[in-house]
Amino acid sequence: MSHLSFAKGHGTENDFIVIRDRHNLAPLTPELVRAICDRHAGIGGDGIVRAVKAGCMPEWDGDPSLWFMDYWNPDGSLAEMCGNGLRVFVRYLIEEDLVPRSEVPIATRAGLRTVWEQPGGALRTGMGPVGVLAPTWVEAGGVRFEAVAASVGNPHAVALLPDGADLAGIDLRDGVVYDKVQFPDGVNTEFVKVLGHCHLRMRVFERGAGETRSCGTGVVASAAVARQATGTGGPWTVDVPGGRLGVDFDAEQAFLTGPAVILARGDLVMPG
Amino acid sequence: MSHLSFAKGHGTENDFIVIRDRHNLAPLTPELVRAICDRHAGIGGDGIVRAVKAGCMPEWDGDPSLWFMDYWNPDGSLAEMCGNGLRVFVRYLIEEDLVPRSEVPIATRAGLRTVWEQPGGALRTGMGPVGVLAPTWVEAGGVRFEAVAASVGNPHAVALLPDGADLAGIDLRDGVVYDKVQFPDGVNTEFVKVLGHCHLRMRVFERGAGETRSCGTGVVASAAVARQATGTGGPWTVDVPGGRLGVDFDAEQAFLTGPAVILARGDLVMPG
Repeated sequence: MSHLSFAKGHGTENDFIVIRDRHNLAPLTPELVRAICDRHAGIGGDGIVRAVKAGCMPEWDGDPSLWFMDYWNPDGSLAEMCGNGLRVFVRYLIEEDLVPRSEVPIATRAGLRTVWEQPGGALRTGMGPVGVLAPTWVEAGGVRFEAVAASVGNPHAVALLPDGADLAGIDLRDGVVYDKVQFPDGVNTEFVKVLGHCHLRMRVFERGAGETRSCGTGVVASAAVARQATGTGGPWTVDVPGGRLGVDFDAEQAFLTGPAVILARGDLVMPG
Repeated sequence: MSHLSFAKGHGTENDFIVIRDRHNLAPLTPELVRAICDRHAGIGGDGIVRAVKAGCMPEWDGDPSLWFMDYWNPDGSLAEMCGNGLRVFVRYLIEEDLVPRSEVPIATRAGLRTVWEQPGGALRTGMGPVGVLAPTWVEAGGVRFEAVAASVGNPHAVALLPDGADLAGIDLRDGVVYDKVQFPDGVNTEFVKVLGHCHLRMRVFERGAGETRSCGTGVVASAAVARQATGTGGPWTVDVPGGRLGVDFDAEQAFLTGPAVILARGDLVMPG
């Protein structure tokens, strides 16, 4: 029996296991990720974020002194980035005294991201440029929705619902059908209702994870699509099943603001 | 911020948070149970078992030196007993050196239970007498099934499926409808297919928890109903989504045998 130290945290109920491996001595495997993220036989989570010094990650060629966010989906596939995961990752680094609190640059598979701690404790994250792309469609519960493709480092399809549509009634239990030519590597899907001025409510179906309580890049994609559709700059408030997030834009990129907490720390018992 | 030490374990993927509170100094509340069992904002589990010395539990009037299994459902309601939870509870007590390994008597809301460690590490549990009671019915996914009521300290409705029926195809997503006059406090429902001689496959919908990967008392109830229906004494093997369990009977009671592991230990961060 060996042990693996972990923390578990969540941002708007999008929950992650954080593992620290400064020198990249214990790379994750798909099997291990699935076992740890299993909600019954493991600790359970919407993903794993491993903290590795960027210089120890062959895929990173920037500043080697940064922390790299090695992010995995619960099905054992690699992921580029996730806004909620990034906040949980930075909250962990702050609580472990591994970074200064004020401004934290993080290396991710989607490039360099910066996180700022706000008065009150919320974390504001630079999410990079958002591309609002071509029209597309998605289908859920046998119903087809008009959507817009967007990129926030990872691919999204955002379906802005027409007035009077029933967001809660959309049946996501059998998953989402999407255009496999447009999205050969899969897509995250957001269903979005406009509640009022710069105020949205969103449900999300994540690639590799199913419906989740929140998805940071999905919230940013949704705000960007709504901003373009309405011509209203923001800042935007986006309600998700797990809480509330804020999105604002400058000339170059989007920023996501929201809570993140570490809820438990412990040791996993590893077989063998 | 305070901390609460916990272990997480599972038996055939029915998973439980174990909390030790020898002197009953920190009774659980429904709110706390729901927060800890929340699979996104908490650690997550099919229930909580709190280890308290029986003499510190006002509801126990037997041997005060035993450990009492204070078992809660994830919705914050109290539960009588659960065979998988009992094995996880005893595995925890054994690993923490709180009991001798060979024969472990446990105080539960369903009375005294005894657990024996078998060669190979499986735990065999006395489950008390099983009552196979009146015919009843249950309904799932709009389909009605004939069933038999059974009691294993807690109430069950066991639907033995006819030959050729599709166990995997039963739709439990919207829950189970049952006879509220016969089961005023709710009921656990088992759907059971006979695979061969003394060999069953079972799915279970637990009161207060929904469909789970396994349920010890449900496995015992299913074997008892199948035993009476077929006239075959056993021992029985019961496959559940989370693994395999064994059931045997003597003149007085049923015994459940299966695995149990502690998979993690840690500290929960408690608000306030």
